[in-house]
Amino acid sequence: MVNASIITIGDELLIGQVIDTNSAWMAQELNKIGVWVKRRVAVGDVKEDIWNALEEESRHSQLILITGGLGPTADDITKPLLCNYFNAKPVINEDVLKHITHLFENIFRRPLTENNRKQAEVPNTCSVLFNKLGTAPGMWFEKQGKVFISLPGVPLEMKGIMKDIVLTKLRDHFSMAVISHRTLLTAGVGESILADHIKEWESGLPSHIKLAYLPNYGMVRLRLTSTGTDKTLLENEIQAQFERVKNLAAEWLVTDEDLTMPQVLSQLLKEKNKIVGTAESCTGGYIAHLLTREAGASDKYNGSIVSYSNLVKKDILKVSPETIASAGAVSEETVLQMVKGAIEVLKSDYAIATSGIMGPDGGSPQKPVGTVWIAVGNKNSMTAHKFQFRFDRIRNIELTANTALNMLRKFILSDNDKAI
Amino acid sequence: MVNASIITIGDELLIGQVIDTNSAWMAQELNKIGVWVKRRVAVGDVKEDIWNALEEESRHSQLILITGGLGPTADDITKPLLCNYFNAKPVINEDVLKHITHLFENIFRRPLTENNRKQAEVPNTCSVLFNKLGTAPGMWFEKQGKVFISLPGVPLEMKGIMKDIVLTKLRDHFSMAVISHRTLLTAGVGESILADHIKEWESGLPSHIKLAYLPNYGMVRLRLTSTGTDKTLLENEIQAQFERVKNLAAEWLVTDEDLTMPQVLSQLLKEKNKIVGTAESCTGGYIAHLLTREAGASDKYNGSIVSYSNLVKKDILKVSPETIASAGAVSEETVLQMVKGAIEVLKSDYAIATSGIMGPDGGSPQKPVGTVWIAVGNKNSMTAHKFQFRFDRIRNIELTANTALNMLRKFILSDNDKAI
Repeated sequence: MVNASIITIGDELLIGQVIDTNSAWMAQELNKIGVWVKRRVAVGDVKEDIWNALEEESRHSQLILITGGLGPTADDITKPLLCNYFNAKPVINEDVLKHITHLFENIFRRPLTENNRKQAEVPNTCSVLFNKLGTAPGMWFEKQGKVFISLPGVPLEMKGIMKDIVLTKLRDHFSMAVISHRTLLTAGVGESILADHIKEWESGLPSHIKLAYLPNYGMVRLRLTSTGTDKTLLENEIQAQFERVKNLAAEWLVTDEDLTMPQVLSQLLKEKNKIVGTAESCTGGYIAHLLTREAGASDKYNGSIVSYSNLVKKDILKVSPETIASAGAVSEETVLQMVKGAIEVLKSDYAIATSGIMGPDGGSPQKPVGTVWIAVGNKNSMTAHKFQFRFDRIRNIELTANTALNMLRKFILSDNDKAI
Repeated sequence: MVNASIITIGDELLIGQVIDTNSAWMAQELNKIGVWVKRRVAVGDVKEDIWNALEEESRHSQLILITGGLGPTADDITKPLLCNYFNAKPVINEDVLKHITHLFENIFRRPLTENNRKQAEVPNTCSVLFNKLGTAPGMWFEKQGKVFISLPGVPLEMKGIMKDIVLTKLRDHFSMAVISHRTLLTAGVGESILADHIKEWESGLPSHIKLAYLPNYGMVRLRLTSTGTDKTLLENEIQAQFERVKNLAAEWLVTDEDLTMPQVLSQLLKEKNKIVGTAESCTGGYIAHLLTREAGASDKYNGSIVSYSNLVKKDILKVSPETIASAGAVSEETVLQMVKGAIEVLKSDYAIATSGIMGPDGGSPQKPVGTVWIAVGNKNSMTAHKFQFRFDRIRNIELTANTALNMLRKFILSDNDKAI
């Protein structure tokens, strides 16, 4: 394994204005090719702090990745510093300049300022990593046996350069071992119970196969990573272990591919050629958002009735006023009627309904905060479950949404042979 | 200003499983009391790496905040290391043990394991920072004039301890200067245009008043921070500057308080005692989610028709099939009819409607990816605008949602005197 440090540059990270999502993505991608991120450091747009970070991290790691500090104003500090640190002179890179000019003339349709033009300037000791999606190029430096890679902070641009160039170049440079991964997604089981359930198998894993638990709101992803030299041997071996853990986790298995829950559900709906609709009270549109935020995950999704008020539950979803008066909006009867109403009004084959008390207010001794009813079904049959979540409002919403999607997935699978 | 480093401990941060949202929140809160976060470092659950981070950061900063590494399994490494680093012995803290026992007996209703009991063990040289919301206590150490604060990694627990204890204790310990803040939110103007518009005023600010730009998907928050010793003087001075920048930014001003766009809209609806409903095509429920994810921001929200398919637009929102056939689903006519339909079917006073092409697919030369129509209105009048966003799918959704909320806000304000 190669050790890496990630340095993120920018005051916006230190004053808490921006949450750093780049580092997590980079770490995941680097892991896959056998690079272990040992440290991550964030520093501001301050010359001395950036210099110190470069010095310190090159003592810790073989590979130093730098993001940020390359915007049209901020690179006043970073670029001269990189020139200095790597004993280089700034030179205009003609390919980059041509690309920047093209972007401004044809895409942004704005005049090119001197600041923008200067983004084509790079230290003459670096290899330029071309940035198709933006103006600031990436840069690859080598110094005293260490590799330094400077990338723009804009996530889309950083990801583009990483995928197009950096990952392959790193594999070549460090003559990486062969690495193989297998991933499965479980839902409806806690990390500790799952760990307990597979611990005998896990403890028998050979030392070159590692298992990672990646929990996320009611779901746990397991990732097997195998490192070695013989690709075929490695593939066979990891596949055999993967089959074993799949069997052990069968009860909670959602997918053995690297897919999200909405993607799995969407695939299932495509296979069966069925349409889904949602009726959301307590999730307030969040399930709809999950089903529509990924392109294509939504071909089989008609829409949602976000029935935040009881009026909408009655008027559009046709929940009976008597039910709401007697059992309440958060009840088995209500969510079952919501499913029925959603199937009808959204002209869908299946529907999901949620109703609950997300907190922090609105709880009672009978229905404390975190009480949630979820129902799923089709026009022939339905099922409802009560849950008691005990987190804050936002986490309760996330948990309810994932749990509901999984309930529908299981319902569709069990409903396999029925004609509807 | 006091300089601080934040150290986050945990393999989950280094493999990219978890995105660190703690540091951003901490930085914001620390800024407010006059602490400047100079560096943020993430290290894994590795003794040597944690030790090195403590050593290095105490050279950089006067205050070192540590989060994570205190879970019932991970603290096998962190706690003994802290004992070692601060020359301490582990002792059971009776208050903490009582609290943990209470949590397990009455809240979690699970037996207390030896691992859980051990969470009450703390180094005897620290002051315990009581954790009302969880099992792992925070710890305050002092060594060679530096302050080290260890906090649990669970966001809710970390935030609780910071707000209840740490911020006050820091202010006392470092005899902080008086700090005063004013915040305003703008929408519909880019950071660079706004900066240009207020640059003369900004360049005339006295050196002890700082301005920060906090941009976020179509909105820019401006924060003025003033530092000094005389509270009254400071307050008067910052208020005068705040009034000036408010006037300069009046055209785009959303609020001069520290509120989110949904909160501002919700407040406005409460003042006017009016109800809003949404009809969402391209935002797919995201506006509904924004209006419901914060408690209380939704008293005046009836719900949403997420009309992802044209069928739902026609059936429920009563958009005419001819309109969709001739003008298309992404058109002025369609969003206007969606507003009308939403007001009727959701029994609301106002409605928002969105329809657009979020990408990456679905664009055409006439309607490229990023084309979005938004309409807002009441039963008497409506307004629609076309936008051309040029980001990825998720950012286009965010931008559309914020822009739509702001359009309704402006519509309600302009609609002030009409009887409806």
